[in-house]
Amino acid sequence: MSYRAPVQDIRFLMDNIAGFGAVAGTELFADATGDTVDAILTEAAKMCENVLAPLQRPGDLHPAVLENGVVRTSPGYAEGYKAIAEGGWIGISADPDFGGMGLPMTLTTAVNDMMSSACLSLQLNPLMSQGQIEALEHHASDEIKALYLPKLISGEWCGTMNLTEPQAGSDVGALRSKAEPNGDGTYAISGQKIYISWGDNDFTENVCHLVLARLPDGVAGTKGISLFMVPKLIPDADGNPGKRNDLKVVSLEHKMGLHGSPTAVMEYSGATGWLIGAEHGGIAAMFTMMNNARLGVGVQGLGAAEGALQHAIAYAQDRKQGKAGGTGSIIEHADVRRMLATMKADVFAARAIALMNAVAIDMTTATNEPKWKARAAFLTPICKAFGTDTGIDVANMGIQVHGGMGFIEETGAAQYARDVRVTAIYEGTNGIQAMDLVARKLMDGGEAAFALLEEIQETTDATKKKFPNLAESVWQAIENLRETTEWLVSQDDLTDRFAGAVPYLRAFARVLGGHAHLQAAVSGDAARERLARFYINRLLPEHASLLAHTREGSADLMAITPDDFAA
Amino acid sequence: MSYRAPVQDIRFLMDNIAGFGAVAGTELFADATGDTVDAILTEAAKMCENVLAPLQRPGDLHPAVLENGVVRTSPGYAEGYKAIAEGGWIGISADPDFGGMGLPMTLTTAVNDMMSSACLSLQLNPLMSQGQIEALEHHASDEIKALYLPKLISGEWCGTMNLTEPQAGSDVGALRSKAEPNGDGTYAISGQKIYISWGDNDFTENVCHLVLARLPDGVAGTKGISLFMVPKLIPDADGNPGKRNDLKVVSLEHKMGLHGSPTAVMEYSGATGWLIGAEHGGIAAMFTMMNNARLGVGVQGLGAAEGALQHAIAYAQDRKQGKAGGTGSIIEHADVRRMLATMKADVFAARAIALMNAVAIDMTTATNEPKWKARAAFLTPICKAFGTDTGIDVANMGIQVHGGMGFIEETGAAQYARDVRVTAIYEGTNGIQAMDLVARKLMDGGEAAFALLEEIQETTDATKKKFPNLAESVWQAIENLRETTEWLVSQDDLTDRFAGAVPYLRAFARVLGGHAHLQAAVSGDAARERLARFYINRLLPEHASLLAHTREGSADLMAITPDDFAA
Repeated sequence: MSYRAPVQDIRFLMDNIAGFGAVAGTELFADATGDTVDAILTEAAKMCENVLAPLQRPGDLHPAVLENGVVRTSPGYAEGYKAIAEGGWIGISADPDFGGMGLPMTLTTAVNDMMSSACLSLQLNPLMSQGQIEALEHHASDEIKALYLPKLISGEWCGTMNLTEPQAGSDVGALRSKAEPNGDGTYAISGQKIYISWGDNDFTENVCHLVLARLPDGVAGTKGISLFMVPKLIPDADGNPGKRNDLKVVSLEHKMGLHGSPTAVMEYSGATGWLIGAEHGGIAAMFTMMNNARLGVGVQGLGAAEGALQHAIAYAQDRKQGKAGGTGSIIEHADVRRMLATMKADVFAARAIALMNAVAIDMTTATNEPKWKARAAFLTPICKAFGTDTGIDVANMGIQVHGGMGFIEETGAAQYARDVRVTAIYEGTNGIQAMDLVARKLMDGGEAAFALLEEIQETTDATKKKFPNLAESVWQAIENLRETTEWLVSQDDLTDRFAGAVPYLRAFARVLGGHAHLQAAVSGDAARERLARFYINRLLPEHASLLAHTREGSADLMAITPDDFAA
Repeated sequence: MSYRAPVQDIRFLMDNIAGFGAVAGTELFADATGDTVDAILTEAAKMCENVLAPLQRPGDLHPAVLENGVVRTSPGYAEGYKAIAEGGWIGISADPDFGGMGLPMTLTTAVNDMMSSACLSLQLNPLMSQGQIEALEHHASDEIKALYLPKLISGEWCGTMNLTEPQAGSDVGALRSKAEPNGDGTYAISGQKIYISWGDNDFTENVCHLVLARLPDGVAGTKGISLFMVPKLIPDADGNPGKRNDLKVVSLEHKMGLHGSPTAVMEYSGATGWLIGAEHGGIAAMFTMMNNARLGVGVQGLGAAEGALQHAIAYAQDRKQGKAGGTGSIIEHADVRRMLATMKADVFAARAIALMNAVAIDMTTATNEPKWKARAAFLTPICKAFGTDTGIDVANMGIQVHGGMGFIEETGAAQYARDVRVTAIYEGTNGIQAMDLVARKLMDGGEAAFALLEEIQETTDATKKKFPNLAESVWQAIENLRETTEWLVSQDDLTDRFAGAVPYLRAFARVLGGHAHLQAAVSGDAARERLARFYINRLLPEHASLLAHTREGSADLMAITPDDFAA
C-alpha cells in the first residue's frame, strides 16, 4: 500500500483558496515563483513516497528503546532522517544567512503535510527542530544563533521543547525546574521534564533542548519563567559537540501509537544552559514558537488523515464484497462511498484551513500588517484542533472502511488511528485551543473573526449566480456563525464562552470548509464540484447543532456537580 | 483505578425507562421479582468489580498466544472464566431444563453490561456461548440439545460462531466451506474460517464451533448454506469429550486491541459436524442467534464506554491543574465538565436503548405478540451501532480528559479505545446495521418505527407541564424523525435509503436518548434532571443535521465517481 503525495490538491488549494499568490507577490518571498514551488513540492513528494512511507510500519513494530541510557531508534529512521536533512526540508522557511531556504511557511506546511502522511513519528523530529529554529531566530543572541542555527537547519543537530512537568501540563506556570546563574553567563538547570518528544536519538550529532525553568528571582506563575538552551553535548569553541552535559533520558513512555518517536522523561541535574531571550521572558519566547508549532501539529493531523484516506481508498477499490455495481468493488456501496467522501471532503477542508493559516503567517512576515497577524493568530487554534480532530475521525473511518481487516495491525489502518491520537493532546490540548479561540482570540472584540467572516461572505456572494443553492447554504452558515460570534463576544463571564468553546471552534472550521469547497466548485473542476456538493449539503449542516450547543452558555453545564458523576 | 458496577443506574433504567415491570408481570418471567433482580445485579456486580476488572490490563499486556497448536490465554483468565461460569452468568436466560436460570434477557443484558466494563476481552467468550446456546435452543435436535446445552450453560464447554471467510465477510453468501454427508448422519466439514473470536482456549474442556458451510446440493448465495455443530473434541456416548476432531487453529491475529481474546484463523479438514436446523437453513438459524448477539455487542460498546467514563471521572476528580475553582480538580474546568457530561449522558442513552431492546425481546418471548417482535427487531441495529459508536466516542473522549496521560498505555484509558474499536465492526459492521434498519426494518412500511415514535411522543406529552421547554425539544425532534422516516419509507430505490442510513440510525438513537433523558428528569432525581437538560439542549440538536444528511438521498453521493478518489 503506497502513499502518493497529493501535490495537485495542495497546489490547487494554495493557488485557488489560500491566496498564495499574495505571498509570492511580496518582495520578501519573490523567490517563491511557480517553478520554485513546483520543484519543492515535486522533490519533497518523491522523498516522502520513496524514503519515508516505507518507514511507517517498521517504526510501529520496532519502537525506539532506551538501552544503557542510549536511545536506539527504529530501523531505517537514521537513513530517513538523513534524507529529510539533506533535502533541506528542515529549513525551508529558515533564515538563508544560516543555511535556510528563506521560503514561505506555506511551503513548509505543504511539505510537512506530506511527511506527516508518509511517516508521522519520524516527521515529528524535524517539526520540533523547525519550532526551535524559529524561537532562536526571534529570541536568541547573535552568538547562539551563529552557533546553533546552521547545525539545526542542516539537520546535523536537532531540537526539542521542554515545557511539561508532572504537575505542570496545560498549566505551564506551575513548573518547578530551576535555573541558577553560574556566574559565567551560563546557568545550572535542574528539574524533571516529561513528554519530551524525540528527547534523544542515535542519528544526530547533538540534541538541543529548549527548557523552561525559573530563575531564583522568578515569581510564581508564567511571569517568572525563562527559556534556556541546554545542549546534550556542550559545543566547544569551534562549535563542535564536546563535553556531555548533566542531563539524561530517565525513561521512554509506552504509548498508544507513534512508537517510532521516543517520548522521554528528561532529568536535568545542574546542566549547563544559556538564556534565550529576556530573563523571565520564557513564555513570550515559547509562544512565538508555539503558535507555529500549533500550525505544524494541525498539519500532522491532516497529513495523517490523508495517509489513512489513501489507505482506505486503495482497499475499497480493491476489495470485492456483496452485490456492488460498477467496478464490483466495495467503493460502489453507498455507505462506503459516504465514508470515503466524508474523509476526502474533511481532509480538503482541514488542508484549506492550514494553508490559509500559513499564508496569513507569511503575509505577516512579509508585510507586518496587523490584519494578517490577527488573521494568523485567529486561525491557528482552529487549524490545530480541526486538523487533529480530522486526523482522528478520518483514521477511525478508515478502519471502518476496512471492516474486519481494519482491526488487524498488519493492515496498517489501525496505526494511523493510534499514531494520530496524540496530536489532539500535545502542543496544547484541543480543549485549550478552543479556550484560546473564544477568550484570547476574541479579545479584540471579534475584529479578526468578523473581518474573516466578511471576506468569505463576499467571495460567497460572487458565486451566487453559478451555484445559487450551494452559495445560499454557505452564506447562511456564515451568517449563523457571525451571530454566535457576536453572542460570544458579549459574554463577560469567560466560563460562558469556555462551556461552548469546542463546539464553536468546530463550527468555525465547518464554515471555513464550506467556503473552501464552494470556491473549489467555482474553479470549474467537475470532481471538486461533486465533492463540494457533498460537503455543503451533508456535512456543513452540523454547524447549526454545534452553534446551538455553544449558545447554551455555562449555567446548566456547571450546575452538574462533581458529585453527579460519583454515582 | 477500580470499576464500580452502576447497579443503581441500571435498575433505574430498567424500572423507569425500559418498562421492565411488564416483563416481570408476565407468567413466563414471574420469577423475576424485585428481590431476584437485586440479588442478580448485586452478585454480578461483585464478581465484575473484584474478579474481572483486575484482568483488564493483564490481558492487554499478555495477549493470548498460539504455541505448538495450543492457545495459551492471558494470566488470570482461567480463574476469571471460572468465576463467570460458576456464578451462572452464562446461562441467566438459558432454559432451566438444561441448567439455565430462565430469567429475562434484560437481566442478561445488565450483567453483560457490567462484565463488558470490567474486562471486555474475557466477556466476549461467554457472549459467544450465549449466542450458541440460543441457536441450539431454537434449532438443534433434542439429542444435540441434551448433549451440548448443559455443558455450554455450565461453562464447562464454550461456543464460537464461524461465519467469515477471506472472500465472505459482510457478504456471508459468498462462503466456500463445504459439508459432505458421511453417510452416518454426520458431515465432513472442510474450509477456512477467519476472525473466529475465542477460537480456542486452555480453560474449557471443549470448544463447540457452530460453522456455516454448503452441502453438495446447496445453491450459491445465502440460500444454500447450512449450519453445523463441529466440536473440538468429539463427545463420546456419555457426553465426555473424546477424540480430537479434524480442525485446528492456524494462527491468531495481531489486533489493535482486545488482546486477551484470541482471534483465530480456523482450518476444518473434513471435521465431523452435526447439522443444526434444516438443510440449507443455516442463515435462518444464524439470524436467530445474530439478532441477540447484536444486542450483546451493542452492550459491549456501552459497557466499555461505562468503564472509560469511570476511569476518566476518577482522573478528573483527582488531577489538579490550572485555576480550577471548587474542588481544585480539573473536573471544575468547563471543558472537562462538558466532556464528562457528554460521556455520561451518552452512556445513559445507549444503556436505555439496550434495555428497551432487551425488554422487547423478553416481551416477545413471553407474549409472542407481533408488536413486541417488531419492536425488538427494529431496536436491535440501533442498539448495536449506537452502543458501539458510543463506546468508541466515549473512550476517545476519555483519553482526551486524561491529557498527555491518555496516550500513555500504563494509564489504561487508551486500552478502552483500542479494545472497543472492533465492536463497530464485528457482528455486522455498523454500516450493515444501518442498512438493515432502513431496508429490512422499514419493510413493514414503517409500522414498527411509527408505533415506537407515537409511544414516546405520548410519554413526552405527559411531561409538558413539568418541563415545557425540554418536552417541546424532544417532541419536535420526534416529529422531525417521523417526517424523515416517512420520506425514507417512500424511497423505492434502496440506494436512496442506504446513502443516509448511518446518519438516520444515529438520529434515531439521539431521539430515543432524548426520550430516555426526559423520562429520567421526570423521575424527580435532581442529578438526572441536570444531565437531561445537558443532553436535550446540547446533544439532541445533532439529530437535525443528521436528518438533513439522510434526506439528501443518493444522487449527489453516487455522482462522485471512483475516479474522483484516485487524485
